[in-house]
Amino acid sequence: MKEIKLFAPATVANVSCGFDVLGFCLDPIGDEMIIRKTDQPGVRITKIEGQDLPLSTKKNVAGVAAEALLASLATSFGFEIEIYKKIKAGSGIGSSAASSAGAVFGINELLGRPYSRNELIQFAMKGEVLASGVGHADNVAPALLGGFTLVRCNKQVDVVALPSPSELYATIIHPKIELRTADARSVLKKNIPLNKAIEQWGNLAALVSGLYTDNYELISRSLVDVIIEPERSPLIPFFSELKGAALDAGALGSGISGSGPSIYALSRGEETAKKVRQAMEKVFLPMNIDFDTYVSKINTEGIKIIE
Amino acid sequence: MKEIKLFAPATVANVSCGFDVLGFCLDPIGDEMIIRKTDQPGVRITKIEGQDLPLSTKKNVAGVAAEALLASLATSFGFEIEIYKKIKAGSGIGSSAASSAGAVFGINELLGRPYSRNELIQFAMKGEVLASGVGHADNVAPALLGGFTLVRCNKQVDVVALPSPSELYATIIHPKIELRTADARSVLKKNIPLNKAIEQWGNLAALVSGLYTDNYELISRSLVDVIIEPERSPLIPFFSELKGAALDAGALGSGISGSGPSIYALSRGEETAKKVRQAMEKVFLPMNIDFDTYVSKINTEGIKIIE
Repeated sequence: MKEIKLFAPATVANVSCGFDVLGFCLDPIGDEMIIRKTDQPGVRITKIEGQDLPLSTKKNVAGVAAEALLASLATSFGFEIEIYKKIKAGSGIGSSAASSAGAVFGINELLGRPYSRNELIQFAMKGEVLASGVGHADNVAPALLGGFTLVRCNKQVDVVALPSPSELYATIIHPKIELRTADARSVLKKNIPLNKAIEQWGNLAALVSGLYTDNYELISRSLVDVIIEPERSPLIPFFSELKGAALDAGALGSGISGSGPSIYALSRGEETAKKVRQAMEKVFLPMNIDFDTYVSKINTEGIKIIE
Repeated sequence: MKEIKLFAPATVANVSCGFDVLGFCLDPIGDEMIIRKTDQPGVRITKIEGQDLPLSTKKNVAGVAAEALLASLATSFGFEIEIYKKIKAGSGIGSSAASSAGAVFGINELLGRPYSRNELIQFAMKGEVLASGVGHADNVAPALLGGFTLVRCNKQVDVVALPSPSELYATIIHPKIELRTADARSVLKKNIPLNKAIEQWGNLAALVSGLYTDNYELISRSLVDVIIEPERSPLIPFFSELKGAALDAGALGSGISGSGPSIYALSRGEETAKKVRQAMEKVFLPMNIDFDTYVSKINTEGIKIIE
């Protein structure tokens, strides 16, 4: 095999109480990438469509991630990468993670899988360092592994795949406004009250239990963020109206996707997830804000080869 | 049925990363209680053996919990309670919780079970308010439900029963020193760094995953407390030596039980748990400190009727 085409899905990180640790994988949106083995060593980004991103390997998240992977192996080959960008940068649904994860996944396939999907996370994280200055795994992990993923420890790249109840559907609304990750980060306080932290970890632990037991009511009660959401939501126009509309329409829970501006909701069943989409769209339609919406089952497969 | 005798087990709360939310139930140590239905209304503590505790209903945790339960029901009966105290007050393994939980469990049985075990938690918590000023469920929940329990929310008394891997054994060492819960609480900082909180909830979520999947390695990696233990452990003599000895002897993890001074360790298999006990005893033997030790499987049953 000298060339593969793959689909690298969008992902939701910072799932309410699971800030910085919990993410899940989406189905209908994702980048397409072609990875080609070449005799010439090194990594070259030969084409990017759909977005204005640097072709220079060292300035492109896919390039940096791919180089990190190659540096770990003694190989004389090189690789060309074409990226057909479908996920908008800065949308909060793991645009950089999809490209980083896609690059390392594709190269790993062409090399005969020297690494497991879980082991690829460490290389994909190098792309995240370039994108945001921080090597976090909470988007690349669900992109690579699919389903819900838990980053127990970023430093040790200790990632646990969690089960995804089969009736769980996500609704995403992406208001097309500019919201820089750096700004979203700067509003966060360095210190938080211990009692709020306890509330947060009680909810996260219960959410994990709900995922294991298909307990949708428990999932719903646990999808609460008492720490980050109160700080960040004011940066997102009409956040409380959107979240309120989602919950009124029957969503189990709703919150900021990644560092925003996208908002996610989780629902039991596709029909409810579609009603939630309608309800969220209804909030935005009278406003002068352009937006995209998606309804997605939880993608339990992660990145996949399409050709 | 007019009278029952029951066994109300000791429990470990504040299980490392699960501060204030995670507890588990022990097997070999617990109070025995006799609960007797009487025609005279109200609750009377008629006997306490093994410890100097108040017989006055309003000053005794079992009395207060029992009264809270009775107040919720229209019943003309009353109840007498005899308490045979085996768990030392202030030992950090849920002494007050055992008596509170035992009282409400016994009365509920004699009344024909108007409440589920989970519903009894709210009443047993009233005893904890008397004991420590705070209505927390992290000891009464495992005493009533058995196994590992997660308190998602104290205010709403939302408690989730978690699975207990069958090879998991606890070792407890109780140094007989005075350590007041109030003192243990006063060393805690009201505010904690966000990055430490993230580390803590990543570990707790992974621990819950490990309990569901019998993943002892993951349980071991997750049994870390980066917030409370560093503050409280200096109050416990030779804490780091005891913990180090436990880990060297093969324990999966170790930490403060409740607010101390007891220390717990969790191990895979009874044999390792016994080695851990030996190793911990070896630390204390040359010192001038009296202590008790226990090895226990996780008690998945909770409070039980013995006669």
